[in-house]
Amino acid sequence: MGEHTVTSFDEDLDHLDRLVRDMSELGAAMVQAATRSLIGSDNALAQRVLSDDALMDARQRELDEAAIRLIAKRQPMAQDLRAVVGAIRMAADLERIGDLAKNIAKRVAAVGAGGTPRNLAHSLEAMSDLVLDQIHGTIEAYVGRDAAALEARRDDDENIDIHYTSVFRELLTYMMEDPRNITTCTHLLFCAKNLERIGDHVTNIAENAYYVVTGSLLPLHRPKRDETTPAD
Amino acid sequence: MGEHTVTSFDEDLDHLDRLVRDMSELGAAMVQAATRSLIGSDNALAQRVLSDDALMDARQRELDEAAIRLIAKRQPMAQDLRAVVGAIRMAADLERIGDLAKNIAKRVAAVGAGGTPRNLAHSLEAMSDLVLDQIHGTIEAYVGRDAAALEARRDDDENIDIHYTSVFRELLTYMMEDPRNITTCTHLLFCAKNLERIGDHVTNIAENAYYVVTGSLLPLHRPKRDETTPAD
Repeated sequence: MGEHTVTSFDEDLDHLDRLVRDMSELGAAMVQAATRSLIGSDNALAQRVLSDDALMDARQRELDEAAIRLIAKRQPMAQDLRAVVGAIRMAADLERIGDLAKNIAKRVAAVGAGGTPRNLAHSLEAMSDLVLDQIHGTIEAYVGRDAAALEARRDDDENIDIHYTSVFRELLTYMMEDPRNITTCTHLLFCAKNLERIGDHVTNIAENAYYVVTGSLLPLHRPKRDETTPAD
Repeated sequence: MGEHTVTSFDEDLDHLDRLVRDMSELGAAMVQAATRSLIGSDNALAQRVLSDDALMDARQRELDEAAIRLIAKRQPMAQDLRAVVGAIRMAADLERIGDLAKNIAKRVAAVGAGGTPRNLAHSLEAMSDLVLDQIHGTIEAYVGRDAAALEARRDDDENIDIHYTSVFRELLTYMMEDPRNITTCTHLLFCAKNLERIGDHVTNIAENAYYVVTGSLLPLHRPKRDETTPAD
């Protein structure tokens, strides 16, 4: 258990971190492409998101296998083990983010060319930008082992939820104005919901990362929009 | 590494299995109560689901800690490690099932007393029954280490998706008939979607369980409704 072993464990952990970061970059690219394909009715771009999802699944399996090999080989104790299990959990959230982006991309054809009213397109793009910023900020804070930055990220989710609620209301208005909008708006509603859920998964990642970095749970005291609105 | 140690590891693993089974029973009870509270506009029952969710979160933490202690103490090799990591993953899916049930319960107040048309109530209850059967069957097959039964469960999800699609269409019809139905129907749409997503999580559990039991991935060859409809 000399210094050499310790260094090697850290190298293995760095490798896991790189895989987490790669997955997060792929996830962010998928979210961005899915939103763009929806707003621009771009079927080819939507198709790319679908094939990226297969890549995301493969990367998760790769990370899982690397993590399990690492545990078997190094047999790490509490704190190191926490980091490895943390990486497995983050990979699971990133894989779900890929799924949700894919589900947005799959609605592109259903929404069709006449699809997204300009105001809504703007609101959806704003949501997507917030999510992308949340992903990048969270992963940077994790890789940099920056607990304070991770704690600060938790306002992101609140902000995304506020945007979601506003998109939700906007969509209800369109549906009430003209029943012919209902089918399209329902698809857009699920797209907005998926962006909101992606935000939830990034929040999970931040909570997990915080636990890896500090060994403590993030204090539970976050604004409880959950109790006031049934918006999820 | 005598027989005594092996037995003890198996006992520890049995303990994890019991925790998984407890969480699955709690999850099933939450799904059932959430659906009933929605259909019967039963706010008190909905409230119980909300407090059950806190219990579910606590159970997941308990399982995670037991699993991590087990890895640290026993330092299991490949196959045993797979079982422990599998339990952690199943617990994560069960916790998400609790969240989704909670989200149904939170919509009970918004849907209100006049809420669910009889036909829809019937369809939602049928979906919920399918999900409950899927949860029980999957966990029994896992605890019994029955790979064939796990493989057979994968049709469940297809069946739930078919019900979801029909509820989705029914809801669109109500919305188009009368714009005053739109807000309520939107909430019911998310409830139906949540039941469908619970089915997806149970399918994840079955796939994970299959991997624990056999060491192989479930063959990917399941009906790909994903490619034909944007229904998620």
